[in-house]
Amino acid sequence: MFYHIKELQYEAKPDRPDPVYAKKLQEILGGQFGEITVMMQYLFQGWNCRADQKYRDMILDIGTEEMAHVEMIATMIARLLDNAPIQDQEEAVKDPLIGSILGGMNPQHVIVSGLGATPTDSVGYPWNSRYTISSGNLLADFRANLNAESQGRLQAVRLYESTTDPGVRDMLSFLIARDTMHQNQWMAAIEDLEQQQKAVVPATFPQELEKQEVSYSFMNFSEGEESKKGRWAKGKSLDGQAEFEYVSHPTAMGPPPVLNPSPPNVHDTPKRVTNQYID
Amino acid sequence: MFYHIKELQYEAKPDRPDPVYAKKLQEILGGQFGEITVMMQYLFQGWNCRADQKYRDMILDIGTEEMAHVEMIATMIARLLDNAPIQDQEEAVKDPLIGSILGGMNPQHVIVSGLGATPTDSVGYPWNSRYTISSGNLLADFRANLNAESQGRLQAVRLYESTTDPGVRDMLSFLIARDTMHQNQWMAAIEDLEQQQKAVVPATFPQELEKQEVSYSFMNFSEGEESKKGRWAKGKSLDGQAEFEYVSHPTAMGPPPVLNPSPPNVHDTPKRVTNQYID
Amino acid sequence: MFYHIKELQYEAKPDRPDPVYAKKLQEILGGQFGEITVMMQYLFQGWNCRADQKYRDMILDIGTEEMAHVEMIATMIARLLDNAPIQDQEEAVKDPLIGSILGGMNPQHVIVSGLGATPTDSVGYPWNSRYTISSGNLLADFRANLNAESQGRLQAVRLYESTTDPGVRDMLSFLIARDTMHQNQWMAAIEDLEQQQKAVVPATFPQELEKQEVSYSFMNFSEGEESKKGRWAKGKSLDGQAEFEYVSHPTAMGPPPVLNPSPPNVHDTPKRVTNQYID
Amino acid sequence: MFYHIKELQYEAKPDRPDPVYAKKLQEILGGQFGEITVMMQYLFQGWNCRADQKYRDMILDIGTEEMAHVEMIATMIARLLDNAPIQDQEEAVKDPLIGSILGGMNPQHVIVSGLGATPTDSVGYPWNSRYTISSGNLLADFRANLNAESQGRLQAVRLYESTTDPGVRDMLSFLIARDTMHQNQWMAAIEDLEQQQKAVVPATFPQELEKQEVSYSFMNFSEGEESKKGRWAKGKSLDGQAEFEYVSHPTAMGPPPVLNPSPPNVHDTPKRVTNQYID
Amino acid sequence: MFYHIKELQYEAKPDRPDPVYAKKLQEILGGQFGEITVMMQYLFQGWNCRADQKYRDMILDIGTEEMAHVEMIATMIARLLDNAPIQDQEEAVKDPLIGSILGGMNPQHVIVSGLGATPTDSVGYPWNSRYTISSGNLLADFRANLNAESQGRLQAVRLYESTTDPGVRDMLSFLIARDTMHQNQWMAAIEDLEQQQKAVVPATFPQELEKQEVSYSFMNFSEGEESKKGRWAKGKSLDGQAEFEYVSHPTAMGPPPVLNPSPPNVHDTPKRVTNQYID
Amino acid sequence: MFYHIKELQYEAKPDRPDPVYAKKLQEILGGQFGEITVMMQYLFQGWNCRADQKYRDMILDIGTEEMAHVEMIATMIARLLDNAPIQDQEEAVKDPLIGSILGGMNPQHVIVSGLGATPTDSVGYPWNSRYTISSGNLLADFRANLNAESQGRLQAVRLYESTTDPGVRDMLSFLIARDTMHQNQWMAAIEDLEQQQKAVVPATFPQELEKQEVSYSFMNFSEGEESKKGRWAKGKSLDGQAEFEYVSHPTAMGPPPVLNPSPPNVHDTPKRVTNQYID
Repeated sequence: MFYHIKELQYEAKPDRPDPVYAKKLQEILGGQFGEITVMMQYLFQGWNCRADQKYRDMILDIGTEEMAHVEMIATMIARLLDNAPIQDQEEAVKDPLIGSILGGMNPQHVIVSGLGATPTDSVGYPWNSRYTISSGNLLADFRANLNAESQGRLQAVRLYESTTDPGVRDMLSFLIARDTMHQNQWMAAIEDLEQQQKAVVPATFPQELEKQEVSYSFMNFSEGEESKKGRWAKGKSLDGQAEFEYVSHPTAMGPPPVLNPSPPNVHDTPKRVTNQYID
Repeated sequence: MFYHIKELQYEAKPDRPDPVYAKKLQEILGGQFGEITVMMQYLFQGWNCRADQKYRDMILDIGTEEMAHVEMIATMIARLLDNAPIQDQEEAVKDPLIGSILGGMNPQHVIVSGLGATPTDSVGYPWNSRYTISSGNLLADFRANLNAESQGRLQAVRLYESTTDPGVRDMLSFLIARDTMHQNQWMAAIEDLEQQQKAVVPATFPQELEKQEVSYSFMNFSEGEESKKGRWAKGKSLDGQAEFEYVSHPTAMGPPPVLNPSPPNVHDTPKRVTNQYID
Repeated sequence: MFYHIKELQYEAKPDRPDPVYAKKLQEILGGQFGEITVMMQYLFQGWNCRADQKYRDMILDIGTEEMAHVEMIATMIARLLDNAPIQDQEEAVKDPLIGSILGGMNPQHVIVSGLGATPTDSVGYPWNSRYTISSGNLLADFRANLNAESQGRLQAVRLYESTTDPGVRDMLSFLIARDTMHQNQWMAAIEDLEQQQKAVVPATFPQELEKQEVSYSFMNFSEGEESKKGRWAKGKSLDGQAEFEYVSHPTAMGPPPVLNPSPPNVHDTPKRVTNQYID
Repeated sequence: MFYHIKELQYEAKPDRPDPVYAKKLQEILGGQFGEITVMMQYLFQGWNCRADQKYRDMILDIGTEEMAHVEMIATMIARLLDNAPIQDQEEAVKDPLIGSILGGMNPQHVIVSGLGATPTDSVGYPWNSRYTISSGNLLADFRANLNAESQGRLQAVRLYESTTDPGVRDMLSFLIARDTMHQNQWMAAIEDLEQQQKAVVPATFPQELEKQEVSYSFMNFSEGEESKKGRWAKGKSLDGQAEFEYVSHPTAMGPPPVLNPSPPNVHDTPKRVTNQYID
Repeated sequence: MFYHIKELQYEAKPDRPDPVYAKKLQEILGGQFGEITVMMQYLFQGWNCRADQKYRDMILDIGTEEMAHVEMIATMIARLLDNAPIQDQEEAVKDPLIGSILGGMNPQHVIVSGLGATPTDSVGYPWNSRYTISSGNLLADFRANLNAESQGRLQAVRLYESTTDPGVRDMLSFLIARDTMHQNQWMAAIEDLEQQQKAVVPATFPQELEKQEVSYSFMNFSEGEESKKGRWAKGKSLDGQAEFEYVSHPTAMGPPPVLNPSPPNVHDTPKRVTNQYID
Repeated sequence: MFYHIKELQYEAKPDRPDPVYAKKLQEILGGQFGEITVMMQYLFQGWNCRADQKYRDMILDIGTEEMAHVEMIATMIARLLDNAPIQDQEEAVKDPLIGSILGGMNPQHVIVSGLGATPTDSVGYPWNSRYTISSGNLLADFRANLNAESQGRLQAVRLYESTTDPGVRDMLSFLIARDTMHQNQWMAAIEDLEQQQKAVVPATFPQELEKQEVSYSFMNFSEGEESKKGRWAKGKSLDGQAEFEYVSHPTAMGPPPVLNPSPPNVHDTPKRVTNQYID
């Protein structure tokens, strides 16, 4: 169960409105790697957690924090939309700044949300839950989380570069710092699990059941061998189980497939619409 | 540019048709972490790559291999659909096996694709490109890739557990082995990049610009302190820059937000729809 | 900002697992009118609220409660999935119950989420934010909220009818009761606003600017006049501004449209691909 | 069955082309609360109606009218796109008006539809049927309809404020007037049903089966008690069944959930990946 | 503008309810090539038509008919859902027919639509407008229409094969017949346009501006030359402009691409994260 | 299985960056009829093909070529994004060109993809697999393919008209030429199949089972008879089986539908919420 307090986790106030930037900032609110994604991903991972309580508790801690981030960014966007222009393009272009703002802002910020934030990304695409994963396997999911925090911090940094507004930059400097922590946190949690089990997910599948002759082979399907120069092409495998092998010319191990004809009641093209026409 | 050869990378032939299993197997074809996802993710990462050629080449090698996996699974699904029943439920239930098959298979495998595989997941939801990421930052993206291969192998293993068909299991044992390699590959590539730059993505953002007092603090937003027992709560941070700190009772650093009233031409509820009615 | 406590708002424990019911219950978790919808809708309405603080506070109260409902249903679904069967259909049908369960459950509950709840509906379709609205106009939005609680309670009642499990019914009886309150709450909030302004949204648009001769006319576009028997066809209009009028044979008020030809560089079909062929 | 006549219900002709406005106007054509939504929602409610014929007939009357509105707005958009610029940005910016138009219009209006309207919203997102509801319970659905007409009129008014074109404003004044009627119509239909049954949907569920001790309690989950000042917090409940109660400090009624470990063949993280590492 | 009459274009009444079949029949209502698709596609093509009135009128004739088909199928589905079972799986399986029905039907047909049709396909995926095209170029669009009617009739035939219900088959025999006409109609309209212009769309682009040396070459990118045996590999091109050429070993005409490094403020991986680690 | 070579099929290099054009060009990469669509459509048609090998091989040839087109356009887009501006709108508008570029480009090209192409269309909407069809019936699918190549060439031509960049136009001239071939190719393949079977899809359904009295009737559902002037309204039907008939006043062949009341446990509005209130 949750409680809300009115204070923001950190101040979210721009020095001046900027509706075009409001549109861009939506990316880290409702985008693929925005705050709604990590909030929902962590909450579901926590609620579904069947492992030790320290994991469940830790995941729900961070999930609850992400809700505060959603709130901060929503607040910032609403304020960036203060005084957004509402008029025709033709009038607007008399002032080039207003003209370019009208063209560059998200029209739904006026028409649909009345100067409020929306749970969408920077092109107005709605957030959807296929952005999240809660697999029941924590090592897999912590890797998802590390990726989400990496993409998220990268996007926040790019948004930091795209404005000079001190208030916006101040809020972003907070979010970027928290993403530093969260990347560290998931790295720590991954290390924790990798020390208890093998590094390959899922560690519980008996490796003798897999086709082991191709378990450590790098296959060069793209002409040229620049790919041979990497750590992935030689030396001990990262899971410590074998040596990497570089296959310069990978070949097919299966035959050409020929499918059976389908039964008549499916009304596919019959096997032999014969070749009488040509050949 | 690409060339196709008719042989499969590995055999994809079930011992017997099983249309209900065909529906399930769609998950690793067209699902969130299916083969289409990794194929498209790697190809776009390769084509967009502005870094050293060894990375571009390596990424395109594996992207090209994933196309062969898409082909194998599509072939397997078409064969699992051979002889799928097409009749009413009422007749079907005279044979309980057929009855449960009719209820359990994906109706589009008959009506739409005529016994062919579809680029959708196990509930028939279409594949979409928001499953993929190509950010231009390779460390971020390699973490995405490691996650995708972890979720993918986990799903393949669960599908292995859900059938006893030797032909299906044989193909899965190949895919599972390749996922072992691909997890190792991305771990190696991550190690490679982390040794050249800092572990936090993006490494190029000056850390003094972030709000550093919260860069290494674990915040306990969920009542109870089980989360204190983890590696993430004490000791050196994983990026080697600081010590983790555990904040038992995190408090708000910002004030309660109060938004400005909106202008009349937006037709929001005015600030003061006054309280005369009650209070 | 938010805090989480470990207790559930209300117990969420089935008497026995039931993976087919788990699939159905997803509807009120991640469906169009599920708990995620109301949670996100209310939180965004609250965060975007530029009106009196009593509205903002009220909306955030209920938004925060809905998060607890999401948590309860997610927990219930995870428990309904305990011991879900994982095997082939052919073996399964030896036991008709297991056979029909395998056909009727959501395969992603095993393959993707490993026996956890997912943020999707009862056909596995992901939740998306276009299910929500936060328009800035509270009377409009409170009507959206009353609808959401009406559809939500209706669905919960139908799910209550679809099980005999006492634990499930107990949780649903709690949610149904809260929906009773929430319908009452939005009716009260609507009455509050309607007493301060006109009933038609938005009340701030000068009615003399609309084409007033059609503002209170019921138009009978469907042959037959059963529709004349309703309250909507005669008597005082509900906003108290006029009398309803019933138009038996509505006629067009505009001319047939003829569009201009498009310029050549658009490569549409030219206006006069002439009729020389026939006529 | 339907018949079409060539005349428009009302004239739909702008005084001058305006491709940026064409993009915005798409919102009330193919957006969440656009005319396609109400058309499809009403048609399906009518076709699915198992209640008295006066409801079915009334619903299909309005559904048929909405089709005429779709036609009018599509026509208007096509005309607003007459002479839309097709050239590079670099040339365009020599004339600031053309430059901002090129940046602000929807590129699909040229590339995809060749200067025609599209069934999408103002950010180009396609219309989808999850925007609609036909639940079989008319009171629930009429509340959905009242909401749709409220959001729809609000958006039309905001679009009216965003242009000075007399032709566009004339068409909008007609649509706004019809929305006045349609809000009144659904309010009348709601009153009609509420007088025959209880106000809470569904009225047919025996209220003694719900957890009645929480059926009329306002729970204050958000710190601070501004929410106490509303009609929803005291006085008779709107369904006339009880008194509202204000709960200042709502507490959990359920225990903390602990989930069972999952079986090994699901390959989740085992319950006890033990804590030996730290603690 | 449209008018509705109460009669159906053709009877839509099953001999007995069949909720599993109701789910399947949704495909031709709200699927990719269902009746909603053709209805919306034709209406928008008609409304956007800037060519001769005979085309506009013809397109709107058929678009209006398709609305009657939507109505018929929606009616049929509602009737197939009469008496759909609502109970738990465990009780249901005592009767194997009911058990398999519960597993095989769409749960939203009870929970969401209360035994009504929904604007979705046979896996419950919502209809969306990206299924349609109205390009402004009629020859292109008539090919889209011929495809839609071909896929639609194929699906109707497969559904005819999947039932023995005389009432359902009677309605399908009508729809299949109309699809026969509609395929013929679009073939006729295509022939009409092809006789007035060239067969390649768009005919208005000067062919000397295309890279003409590859305009009629079949390129054999897939190992083996079975593809040489087709009409597409030799003889006069279908547009009558040239001879087909078969290229056995197509080669690249462009160089390997090397992208420029990105600027630092984008925070991509720098060009030279050098190779010092390995090589 | 596939192999990749580093060379592009054709050069893809603009003379100068143009981030606004990059956004537009996305349409033929990841749009409804972009190269990803044809690539995926052809590959799945090939893999699912149960007919003669010459068709399978031909389809896979072209599917493999389309992958090279995806690569070319992705490369072009990345280059068009070189040096895309990253700064605030307010600073940007000091230079009107930069101002309009910032407003007109896709913000995700910076924030998400770091100056790389994305698998989305020109409004940023993600590619999804419902754009494709592989039905198992080749005549149906070849019509889909002819449509895709027609829409695709039309869009490429419109993009050609929207730029003066010689490098971009050079690449487009290649793609437009290939689309000329591909339209010819599918026309040839259609002719090939139509000569072996009847022109109506599916040819295998016994035409005596359809309601033959309406199989060749053009029905005039839209007032006015301009539609009578077309080839579709008189003369021999295109399948050669009958004569077209023009029905000026089509009438209903079915009765008005009246649905049964639903059972109480569904909680729909009861049949007789009686009319006592009015009438």
